[in-house]
Amino acid sequence: MSLVIVGSVAFDTIETPFGRRERVVGGSGTYCSLAASYFTRPRIVGVVGRDFPRRAVAFLKSRRVDLRGLKVRSGKTFHWEGRYEKDPNLRTTVRTELNVFKDFRPEVPSAYAAADIVYLANIDPDGHDFILGQFRRPKVLAMDTIRFWIETKREALRRELGRVDILFANDEEARLLSGEQNLVAAGQKIVGLGPSLVVLKKGEHGALVFGKTFLFGVLAHPSSNVIDPTGAGDAFAGGFLGYLDRAGTLTRRNIRRAAVYGSVLASFVIEDFGIERFRTLNAMAVEGRFREFRRLVSF
Amino acid sequence: MSLVIVGSVAFDTIETPFGRRERVVGGSGTYCSLAASYFTRPRIVGVVGRDFPRRAVAFLKSRRVDLRGLKVRSGKTFHWEGRYEKDPNLRTTVRTELNVFKDFRPEVPSAYAAADIVYLANIDPDGHDFILGQFRRPKVLAMDTIRFWIETKREALRRELGRVDILFANDEEARLLSGEQNLVAAGQKIVGLGPSLVVLKKGEHGALVFGKTFLFGVLAHPSSNVIDPTGAGDAFAGGFLGYLDRAGTLTRRNIRRAAVYGSVLASFVIEDFGIERFRTLNAMAVEGRFREFRRLVSF
Repeated sequence: MSLVIVGSVAFDTIETPFGRRERVVGGSGTYCSLAASYFTRPRIVGVVGRDFPRRAVAFLKSRRVDLRGLKVRSGKTFHWEGRYEKDPNLRTTVRTELNVFKDFRPEVPSAYAAADIVYLANIDPDGHDFILGQFRRPKVLAMDTIRFWIETKREALRRELGRVDILFANDEEARLLSGEQNLVAAGQKIVGLGPSLVVLKKGEHGALVFGKTFLFGVLAHPSSNVIDPTGAGDAFAGGFLGYLDRAGTLTRRNIRRAAVYGSVLASFVIEDFGIERFRTLNAMAVEGRFREFRRLVSF
Repeated sequence: MSLVIVGSVAFDTIETPFGRRERVVGGSGTYCSLAASYFTRPRIVGVVGRDFPRRAVAFLKSRRVDLRGLKVRSGKTFHWEGRYEKDPNLRTTVRTELNVFKDFRPEVPSAYAAADIVYLANIDPDGHDFILGQFRRPKVLAMDTIRFWIETKREALRRELGRVDILFANDEEARLLSGEQNLVAAGQKIVGLGPSLVVLKKGEHGALVFGKTFLFGVLAHPSSNVIDPTGAGDAFAGGFLGYLDRAGTLTRRNIRRAAVYGSVLASFVIEDFGIERFRTLNAMAVEGRFREFRRLVSF
């Protein structure tokens, strides 16, 4: 199979109770593809400015991320600045400088057109048609969304939910999208809007996966030391889709395991700032934590 | 084995988005013993006024709850009034009328003195000595606490943590008690204060059980229809301790299963107002949901 991730590659300035990092490499496409790289060879579609460091490109390549779809444009790379309070679920966006991302019209290399899984990470729902027109016939279309699109492009988003196979949403997004406070009701309602699977991410409380006649729950890894929550949701999606890409079929067993791998990858990324944790993370550690999850919940 | 529960037997006036119920039977001892009654024959120590309905006594007896320790005093039964918002985790106490509970000096019937498990539900930590002096030598001492005791009797509470085997706490209490925002750090820190086991209840997100070298996580049953959250925490403790009483030993396997049964009983009680759900709940339904939990988390 093959997995194409369309998303942002960016600089993040991050402040958490553990410190501050200026302009470190981040972005949904970056986190997602690095997480997926433990299972498959993900392909990325994105754009950066000329200020994007060669070392970051080299690191992504060393993780076997296919960067043929990463365009370099004159101008500056997308820059996001955010701050986390003591409660890592409380995030304040201090600044968003879209820069070259502003006019991003994702061009999909012809080598990517036969992708089996296409993941649209935080993409304007009005831009989906343009992107999807460049693919032949993906077996699985996955997307996530953000509060901003839910509030400003609700109709376009509802339309996209009608054709998507997998939707990733966090608790706030699921509540906004469904109008339901109860997360189980929210997940079930969103499945009713179209997606075969809704992956509802609950941060430190894990995730629930809803299907038409299927429900699976996975805990978050019990971490007492969350250094930087940035990218946890994107790493979850990357682990999930990367595993599915490797597994090849969407059986219930594979979906369950994909959710656990998603939770595993999310649990690693928050152990250090930005994408730092990926530098030392190897496949054996990923497998080790997967087994830990089984011990954590078996009875 | 045998389980003695020392706690309140009360009237609750409850308002939730689903309606209002005036002066229905509740109280920590009531919920806890009803939940435990699916596994053992729990013994209750408490006090009510002469206004406490005979039908409620008859119902508790029909569930084989031993009421020899329930004193009837002249005066009115403890009455609590509370309101829940759309988010069932947000509870406002409207009124607390302690009535006969105010001067409650729990007298333990001699027939209860050989109890194996003693559970002190929301009891003033300064009153523990008086109660525990009436037992021979319980194998397991369990307790929970409330925000009020943490804020007003912190030292007495810390002292009691030194001799307790199992502490039940919800997320807010665990944070207050430990000073840690992160729930895993909070649970680990409280284990360091004395208890062999800390059962950290997270409402809709399930529970974590911390031991010195042990960690287990259980989800909440995915309910889309929470009618009345009152008593969920007490039912969790009742299911947990009732199962342990029946199982007879605190092996890791039994502790894991106890936590799942706790979550199962909590999930039932919130499906209707007050203790209503217990009226129709049978052992087969409890076992059925226990098996559902396994399907929910297995991968």
